[in-house]
Amino acid sequence: MGLDHAATKPHEKLAAHLANKLDQVNTLIRARMESRHAPRIPEVTAHLVEAGGKRLRPMLTLAAADMCGYGGDFDVHLAATVEFIHTATLLHDDVVDESAQRRGRPAANLLWDNKSSVLVGDYLFSRAFQLMVETGSLRVLDILANASATIAEGEVLQLTASRDLATNEAIYLQIVRGKTAALFSAATEVGGVISGVSEDQVQALYDYGDALGIAFQIVDDLLDYQGQSTATGKNVGDDFRERKLTLPVIKAVAEASEDERAFWTRTIEKGQQRDGDLDHALELLERHDALGRTRQDANVWADKAKSSLNRLADHPVRQMLLDLTDFVIARVS
Amino acid sequence: MGLDHAATKPHEKLAAHLANKLDQVNTLIRARMESRHAPRIPEVTAHLVEAGGKRLRPMLTLAAADMCGYGGDFDVHLAATVEFIHTATLLHDDVVDESAQRRGRPAANLLWDNKSSVLVGDYLFSRAFQLMVETGSLRVLDILANASATIAEGEVLQLTASRDLATNEAIYLQIVRGKTAALFSAATEVGGVISGVSEDQVQALYDYGDALGIAFQIVDDLLDYQGQSTATGKNVGDDFRERKLTLPVIKAVAEASEDERAFWTRTIEKGQQRDGDLDHALELLERHDALGRTRQDANVWADKAKSSLNRLADHPVRQMLLDLTDFVIARVS
Repeated sequence: MGLDHAATKPHEKLAAHLANKLDQVNTLIRARMESRHAPRIPEVTAHLVEAGGKRLRPMLTLAAADMCGYGGDFDVHLAATVEFIHTATLLHDDVVDESAQRRGRPAANLLWDNKSSVLVGDYLFSRAFQLMVETGSLRVLDILANASATIAEGEVLQLTASRDLATNEAIYLQIVRGKTAALFSAATEVGGVISGVSEDQVQALYDYGDALGIAFQIVDDLLDYQGQSTATGKNVGDDFRERKLTLPVIKAVAEASEDERAFWTRTIEKGQQRDGDLDHALELLERHDALGRTRQDANVWADKAKSSLNRLADHPVRQMLLDLTDFVIARVS
Repeated sequence: MGLDHAATKPHEKLAAHLANKLDQVNTLIRARMESRHAPRIPEVTAHLVEAGGKRLRPMLTLAAADMCGYGGDFDVHLAATVEFIHTATLLHDDVVDESAQRRGRPAANLLWDNKSSVLVGDYLFSRAFQLMVETGSLRVLDILANASATIAEGEVLQLTASRDLATNEAIYLQIVRGKTAALFSAATEVGGVISGVSEDQVQALYDYGDALGIAFQIVDDLLDYQGQSTATGKNVGDDFRERKLTLPVIKAVAEASEDERAFWTRTIEKGQQRDGDLDHALELLERHDALGRTRQDANVWADKAKSSLNRLADHPVRQMLLDLTDFVIARVS
């Protein structure tokens, strides 16, 4: 990372500024996670919801409402909603198939079985649904219903497209919108909607969440090929081993020679990987400057995010969100 | 079954009466199942949504709205909503763990992998969510959000309670409300709500759906021990082999001698089953008249369902729903 962000990390500043509201979100999350009838539920969710997540998505909702001068309590409801949807998605993402389990992937669902992951995820989603109904805003419900559909569609698309070399940057973008940006943009948009600000401002908030989410996911995919496992909790090359086509590889495939294409077909499409393949993949990414060009794309999306923010009035939180955007990018520069 | 219902089966009469609306429901389901981005989705859902289901749940919504003199189009939206939720639940229910797969259970998810079942289920649920938001009724959304939570909670409860001999009739009832009755009662209730009828009538519709759903599930659990596989699509004793405590066994366990209790502990709790165990289980059910007493319970719930209907004004559809209730019970008498 090369930069010293100690004590000045933008999401920590944001968390400090929103501390009071974040406490209320945490209290609400704990209350709604409870199940009188099924004690297994808080057991499964506790390690996900409690365990030191950055609460990035709920903070986006709180930050948006704060910038818009919102004075009510529904920002807390919606922040908890967004975190529940996120956690439900993580649980469902943890469901793996027999073959993947056999390859020894360390996933949260090995602590619990597949069935618990699915059903507890459903429970969290239904809790999110109840929370949003409590806001009484049909517009908020509409936004979150559409975001849910985009998320689910993106996940299914990833399932079919991620091992297919025909997957291009446009399809990648759809997948990224589904798996990450749709919830980011819904989180910021609903913060504006409950505050009753103008359509222009709501749109700017949506655009900010969308672009930030895309930048965030591109950076994540980039870190998979250049990160240190301590920083990301992932090992370099996980996506390659899981045969997941992400932007760096898509860029390298687009410029591949015949031999190179045969390599990607064997390793990603057919999944026939052997020792040394990851090193060769990294070499090919280097040869086509795929990581550098992916980093440029992340920068473009970060710039879009910041110019969307600049359509909003000046506000201390706006500066924190601008800094947050730079920080997301700083992880790979 | 012993009765000749050919051409006079109550659900067929109901389907004939509601044919026009049911066509609209089917058209809407097909339209909303489509996914521009992820063609895998209709592939997975087609065999579930298209393939000759009885459309019982959507018919309940249409029937309730019809009895209440509803003149709009949202009954069609809500009927499709209910069917999507049902189908999503089936898909998530199909997710099995490695051990279960190894025992060779023939499930729909063997056609597709676990991950597709989960994600396509999520997609259908998000589509259901969009459909209900379109009705613009916060009360309808509240009912369906609560039903979703009850369903998910019931499923998790079943996961932990179904192999535990301490599970009693009260817990069984909670599970049954979750897995079956919550969607039945939401289906009938929303039909009344969109029609704008009195609270008494809405309550009667809810009570009907709840009691019918419970009777329906008890009958289903009973058929598992006394049905013919052609009538039910299941083999006798599936629940026993899957170590699922249902009402007949709960009743037999409650009156078990020490030896009998050891048998249930070994076969259900520990899952150590051998040849002849199913026959012995059937003998124990017989010894304690567990099937007969389960049948009586089903009758009590069917009577509750019918008396709830009788709180509504006379109507041709009311008679069909009364007959439907008798028909559910006739499967086991």
